[in-house]
Amino acid sequence: MKKLLIATSALVALTGAASAEVALTGDGRMGLVWDGENAQFSSRARVKFNLSGETDSGLSFGGSFRVDQENYNNEIDEGGNSNESNRSAARGTAGSVYISGTFGKLSMGDVVSAAEAAIGDLTELGYTSGEFAANPEEIDFLTGDGENEEQGPTALYEYTFNGVNLFASMTDGSRRDCGAGNVTYGTLGCYEFDEDDDTDVAFSLAAGYEFGAYNVALAYSENGDGREIVIGGTAAINEFKIKGFYADYDDRDLGQLGDFEFDFDDNADTFEVDYDRAYGLSVEYAMANGVGIQGLWIRREVEILEAFADGAEDAYDAYGIGASYDLGAGATLAGAIIKNEIFADNETRADVGIKFQF
Amino acid sequence: MKKLLIATSALVALTGAASAEVALTGDGRMGLVWDGENAQFSSRARVKFNLSGETDSGLSFGGSFRVDQENYNNEIDEGGNSNESNRSAARGTAGSVYISGTFGKLSMGDVVSAAEAAIGDLTELGYTSGEFAANPEEIDFLTGDGENEEQGPTALYEYTFNGVNLFASMTDGSRRDCGAGNVTYGTLGCYEFDEDDDTDVAFSLAAGYEFGAYNVALAYSENGDGREIVIGGTAAINEFKIKGFYADYDDRDLGQLGDFEFDFDDNADTFEVDYDRAYGLSVEYAMANGVGIQGLWIRREVEILEAFADGAEDAYDAYGIGASYDLGAGATLAGAIIKNEIFADNETRADVGIKFQF
Amino acid sequence: MKKLLIATSALVALTGAASAEVALTGDGRMGLVWDGENAQFSSRARVKFNLSGETDSGLSFGGSFRVDQENYNNEIDEGGNSNESNRSAARGTAGSVYISGTFGKLSMGDVVSAAEAAIGDLTELGYTSGEFAANPEEIDFLTGDGENEEQGPTALYEYTFNGVNLFASMTDGSRRDCGAGNVTYGTLGCYEFDEDDDTDVAFSLAAGYEFGAYNVALAYSENGDGREIVIGGTAAINEFKIKGFYADYDDRDLGQLGDFEFDFDDNADTFEVDYDRAYGLSVEYAMANGVGIQGLWIRREVEILEAFADGAEDAYDAYGIGASYDLGAGATLAGAIIKNEIFADNETRADVGIKFQF
Repeated sequence: MKKLLIATSALVALTGAASAEVALTGDGRMGLVWDGENAQFSSRARVKFNLSGETDSGLSFGGSFRVDQENYNNEIDEGGNSNESNRSAARGTAGSVYISGTFGKLSMGDVVSAAEAAIGDLTELGYTSGEFAANPEEIDFLTGDGENEEQGPTALYEYTFNGVNLFASMTDGSRRDCGAGNVTYGTLGCYEFDEDDDTDVAFSLAAGYEFGAYNVALAYSENGDGREIVIGGTAAINEFKIKGFYADYDDRDLGQLGDFEFDFDDNADTFEVDYDRAYGLSVEYAMANGVGIQGLWIRREVEILEAFADGAEDAYDAYGIGASYDLGAGATLAGAIIKNEIFADNETRADVGIKFQF
Repeated sequence: MKKLLIATSALVALTGAASAEVALTGDGRMGLVWDGENAQFSSRARVKFNLSGETDSGLSFGGSFRVDQENYNNEIDEGGNSNESNRSAARGTAGSVYISGTFGKLSMGDVVSAAEAAIGDLTELGYTSGEFAANPEEIDFLTGDGENEEQGPTALYEYTFNGVNLFASMTDGSRRDCGAGNVTYGTLGCYEFDEDDDTDVAFSLAAGYEFGAYNVALAYSENGDGREIVIGGTAAINEFKIKGFYADYDDRDLGQLGDFEFDFDDNADTFEVDYDRAYGLSVEYAMANGVGIQGLWIRREVEILEAFADGAEDAYDAYGIGASYDLGAGATLAGAIIKNEIFADNETRADVGIKFQF
Repeated sequence: MKKLLIATSALVALTGAASAEVALTGDGRMGLVWDGENAQFSSRARVKFNLSGETDSGLSFGGSFRVDQENYNNEIDEGGNSNESNRSAARGTAGSVYISGTFGKLSMGDVVSAAEAAIGDLTELGYTSGEFAANPEEIDFLTGDGENEEQGPTALYEYTFNGVNLFASMTDGSRRDCGAGNVTYGTLGCYEFDEDDDTDVAFSLAAGYEFGAYNVALAYSENGDGREIVIGGTAAINEFKIKGFYADYDDRDLGQLGDFEFDFDDNADTFEVDYDRAYGLSVEYAMANGVGIQGLWIRREVEILEAFADGAEDAYDAYGIGASYDLGAGATLAGAIIKNEIFADNETRADVGIKFQF
């Protein structure tokens, strides 16, 4: 009898939690990275909190962030800029929250831009998902994804009907001043009244259309003086999944490309460049036995602004190939070889290892 | 049959966990803050760990902390003081643990003072719970709540009988020295032997009495030279809940009021002041249909210690009104308007958004 | 009927999670530490994420890390060295992941060395598990346990057959360069190509043998110029559990012993010393009524390298006694007294309190 009571209360607890709950997921990986000169061990473990609920009238709400996205006591660079480590879900600069219903879905926090929500990135290669080669699969969207953090949280709106997907994202246009005692963009205590007016709203608009196994999307974004137009498409043909994009930038000054600081070979100095355009293609091939093969190519074109270069153009390619094998239950063997011309030593890198989903 | 076995083992796992377990709760919010000059997006997501167990003899034990309260690698200000970001549940400077039984409840860690445990704060307004206007609902208790962090964890004892609630809290009186290699107050490796004797125990004593829908409480606290007497009361009359307090301080030097540095209008310098007293009132009105209205007023009186002011007194008011609507399942629409004279620009602020409990 | 459906889906959710899941455990403690001059409150609360899964072919995989082991935005000392606070499971410098099968178990991350995996530490005393007296129970293994963090994650391999336990651990031999913009050892973006070749792989090999209630183990390790041979053994005789070890070091320069900087009495300067050898013994006595008594003694011998000392040897003892009482369900009362000669003031320390497992 006692056991039955326990069973009932346990189920009640579970069903109660189903209406507004916190669920855990996680991931991990371990393996070897060839950095062009040495083999390196590389591993990690992460956990994600998934919050979800539903109001009495049927609106869904929730949010999510990873443990490593909660760094409450984060800091600002000496130059006064935020960097990718400066993130805290409790301050709105990492993770996100949302509410959704028949009106669509509204998210806020460290969300992607409308352009990225519509188009996404190319295929990730290797057990480190491209990280071993500075993530060449990531398209350098002009807003979101760390580009507007000094304005605090970004808002993203999504609406879908008849295969049409509409997206709009924006920041609030108010730059925040965070001195020594109040160092985090995103906290409420660091408004900069005097300089706020100089800052423009950064925004992005995008639309996509799905027809059968095909998908195309177009996006336009502004961030300060910078402009961005991106077009992307996906096709799923039998075991193949093909993805391509073309991005045109206007007035986009650039200090870095990808995750690495932009640098010319054998030259320690960084030149001033304009980021003109980027385009690329990825192909995934998935066999029924769990084996997959992936390929990637991306090109970034810049214009050198230094006087001696006389506006010369330069291009940086990254290309690679990867293979994976699904072990089941969230475990996958994967490896890849990537040449990313962005590296100062122009080396070819590789990784091989196992990655887990929990 | 296999299903039944699974069910049984699942239930056993659940009931086993019930005697000593870690449960998750969370909260989130998203919306707009008007900072007096601009509209700002503001959002956050947080998760809390709730630890609980029961010994064979029936003592309850447990603890709790949020993910954002675990900043293991925290630091100290240049002035050598801890700040609110310097908190780590694993070091006892955030979150808390407890044990309770017929003898009462003993907690340790970043607990509130006896005064705050007995009296609490005024009503929170808006979807950011007053944070958009520097938390005017928070009473500036002399101990706990971040005031004694340099002495490590605080201990709080609570005992209840016949409607009488008794509270006592204290720190250990030993200041800690944490140099470059050992920067966290609360860790065991940073005792300062030479200066320990100069530090007094900071403590707080409080008693409350509940009779029907009424509640009164009185508290006395000491922290260094500072003294505090606070009286507070709550009355729940039909749909109304009214709360008031009066706090008298003695020898309380003050660098800041509330969350913001104390500052006189149009004057960048901060004066030396004595914080003399504070008093305030809040009213909540809750309708059966889920709509609620809240009001708040608080006054803080200081004495200016600068020679030219000749001991002149000054008072800082904060007042505001808020409204909320319960959407069910932990989601609440809320907004508020607050004028807090503590702001240098004396602006009126407002927020409106949605907050979630998971 | 609805209830039954709910029950079924809840069970399905539970059993689904059983194949690849994230489970939570935790611990806490509260009490008093006598630091030789003052009583100090000391408390903490921690939570651990336990990831686990099983592939279709029956390989187990998983990982674990605590909330306080995820400090994504961590930093490096002024001297360019990592310290114990610089840890992030998402960067592989804290926590670990593993995969295991009939081939044994392979782990990567902040794992212990083969020597420590085979031999372990002596018995922990007191409710703070020896932390109040600089953890004298911890054997100063040459690799792992924070000794090789500048090389990123460590890999540990374990294999067991017929009572024989084999262990091997290594780092990758590639030191990482992490400048201002990329401050974490363990991240993929901070390879130091030029200096990599100067760094040797740090490794450890160990073997153990279990026969009935007895256990012996032998280990050999190298880290740079340093060499280590450790032998250890455990015997469980009735209510007694006895553990001993002898460690011989070669070319091991030492800046510190245990958790505290090595220091001579009444002398603020630290001498250059060679750490020659250490040996010690611990005894646990566990009664049926839940009462336990523990004793510990450890000696560390160093050679003073300063000219005036002419290679004189010196020895540092630590010894202590503790008692504990099991309250059931994970709660334990515990206290201990320890004299650790490593302290500059040569004081005797004690702790008493309660510790929890969730």
